[in-house]
Amino acid sequence: MQKKHILFLAAATLLGAVAVNAANDEPIQPIKPPTGVNPDMAELGKKLYFDPRLSKSGFISCNSCHNLSMGGTDNIPTSIGDKWQEGPINAPTVLNSSLNLAQFWDGRAADLRTQAGGPIANPVEMGSSHTLAVGLLETIPGYVREFKKVFNKSKIDIDQVTMAIAEFEKTLVTPNSRFDQWLLGNAKALSKEELAGYQLFKNSGCVACHNGEAAGGNSFQKMGLMEPYQTANLAEGRAAVTGEDAERFNFKVPTLRNVELTYPYFHDGAANTLSEAVDIMGRLQLGKKFTREENASIVAFLKTLTGDQPDFKLPILPPSTDRTPRPTPFK
Amino acid sequence: MQKKHILFLAAATLLGAVAVNAANDEPIQPIKPPTGVNPDMAELGKKLYFDPRLSKSGFISCNSCHNLSMGGTDNIPTSIGDKWQEGPINAPTVLNSSLNLAQFWDGRAADLRTQAGGPIANPVEMGSSHTLAVGLLETIPGYVREFKKVFNKSKIDIDQVTMAIAEFEKTLVTPNSRFDQWLLGNAKALSKEELAGYQLFKNSGCVACHNGEAAGGNSFQKMGLMEPYQTANLAEGRAAVTGEDAERFNFKVPTLRNVELTYPYFHDGAANTLSEAVDIMGRLQLGKKFTREENASIVAFLKTLTGDQPDFKLPILPPSTDRTPRPTPFK
Repeated sequence: MQKKHILFLAAATLLGAVAVNAANDEPIQPIKPPTGVNPDMAELGKKLYFDPRLSKSGFISCNSCHNLSMGGTDNIPTSIGDKWQEGPINAPTVLNSSLNLAQFWDGRAADLRTQAGGPIANPVEMGSSHTLAVGLLETIPGYVREFKKVFNKSKIDIDQVTMAIAEFEKTLVTPNSRFDQWLLGNAKALSKEELAGYQLFKNSGCVACHNGEAAGGNSFQKMGLMEPYQTANLAEGRAAVTGEDAERFNFKVPTLRNVELTYPYFHDGAANTLSEAVDIMGRLQLGKKFTREENASIVAFLKTLTGDQPDFKLPILPPSTDRTPRPTPFK
Repeated sequence: MQKKHILFLAAATLLGAVAVNAANDEPIQPIKPPTGVNPDMAELGKKLYFDPRLSKSGFISCNSCHNLSMGGTDNIPTSIGDKWQEGPINAPTVLNSSLNLAQFWDGRAADLRTQAGGPIANPVEMGSSHTLAVGLLETIPGYVREFKKVFNKSKIDIDQVTMAIAEFEKTLVTPNSRFDQWLLGNAKALSKEELAGYQLFKNSGCVACHNGEAAGGNSFQKMGLMEPYQTANLAEGRAAVTGEDAERFNFKVPTLRNVELTYPYFHDGAANTLSEAVDIMGRLQLGKKFTREENASIVAFLKTLTGDQPDFKLPILPPSTDRTPRPTPFK
């Protein structure tokens, strides 16, 4: 697929990089609304996503670090976990995460279901355990009823919990960005500068990694290809998963969808602004120093990737009962 | 007003405590939907209420401790603040708080506007300052536009911020509980046990303090009237505001609206269950030991006070810009 895009790029460059305003020919594809979502399961998953009782403290929910009011991120370099512990890596956006080839920066979870179980039981994140979380949900009649309705099993288990959260997350795609409107034929959806930014983005090679529906998320790539990336962050990338030293600093390419909202950037959250991120990417990945104007036009293009944000009512959580274990935030 | 209720109660008792199913004669009045709300201002306030950028860490918003998915509370004995500091007191529900005679447990803020400014600048809560918060909002074009539209001033100031939050909070009333349906004439809205619980609640004297639209929130009363209340919590109550030693342990009577959702109970959050809270209140405030059946029937009544919960879309926050100061959660 990448090869095809590079060939296309070469062709487009030969032709004078005329804007071919037809989605089929572009390396970035419009986001399609989700299909095949089980609405009851997604509704249950939404409640779980917002429920801080899945954490030891009763204070941290999925939405704490993947805040759907803020582009599905926490907008902090690395996240805050149980007892204010500093997380090891930047929280990736949950928006369009169903389009990723794998989950987490190092891809250690194959899919959203596997991912969803991680933070609940991670002592640096929500600090609970699957047993505690399931046991707690079993004491809440509102949940028991809803799990029964969705899964029709005699007991709640962690697979149902993570399946429901993942089902909700499948709904978190963001179609209808101005860029997608342009891809779908509305020539007026982009300004001249934004379009020029896109051309530059394509012609410079950014699309080699940032392509497909999510403009990323579909490959692992080395951070620091032409020049090494300097960071105090200890994350190893794919090497931590595969044990292959050659894959050190190979990270999942982040989606550029809604990138205007998902600052700060990179796995260590070290780039505060889009302009900084574009500059570093140009130099380290492409060996290219963008001029100030080029940088601004790419940034202008990137801001057209902001799509429809989550659009649903704040979920109201079923109350605990006398039997429900109480959170222990200070123990 | 209390006198009238006590007279009424005496009369009702003489008449054999027949349920007079007419709101006018009851010590608890149905909640009226809010009136005179400025919708644009409330909409702006909603965003601010959900915006963790008003905190030093970028992690804590009003909604963190007054979580509208969970009865407007955090369901923790005392709240978690900046750097996981333990708060001094139980977070009171924000639901129906516009009906309170004053804000905070000790009533140190006359109204919601004054209250809203407190946590932002409290080093144990959001840990920011009014200057920092306003300066930050000024760098976010989405906010600048919205403040301009609502207040039509050249600059944002903290009064506009707290006015908008308070305006949003005015919308957070919870009409239409089953108890209110009963008050308004639907005799079938309550079960026999619930109605018996209400009669007992009235006849035992609970209504002396828990009366009015919010079933509380309209007076300060001593915690531990017949027997002293034992607690390790250091809060002094009204004495801390007035300097009058006699007002030590005088706290604002909490609303019983949605009390099923606002566990744990009391200013120190020491009572985990409604049953425990009713038992302690009976003994300490009324010198009365409710039997297990009496306790259960009062609890059944209290659960009928759960009204319509907040019903609005998750707000989407305007993004920061390159100029926006970044949060400093770990400094």
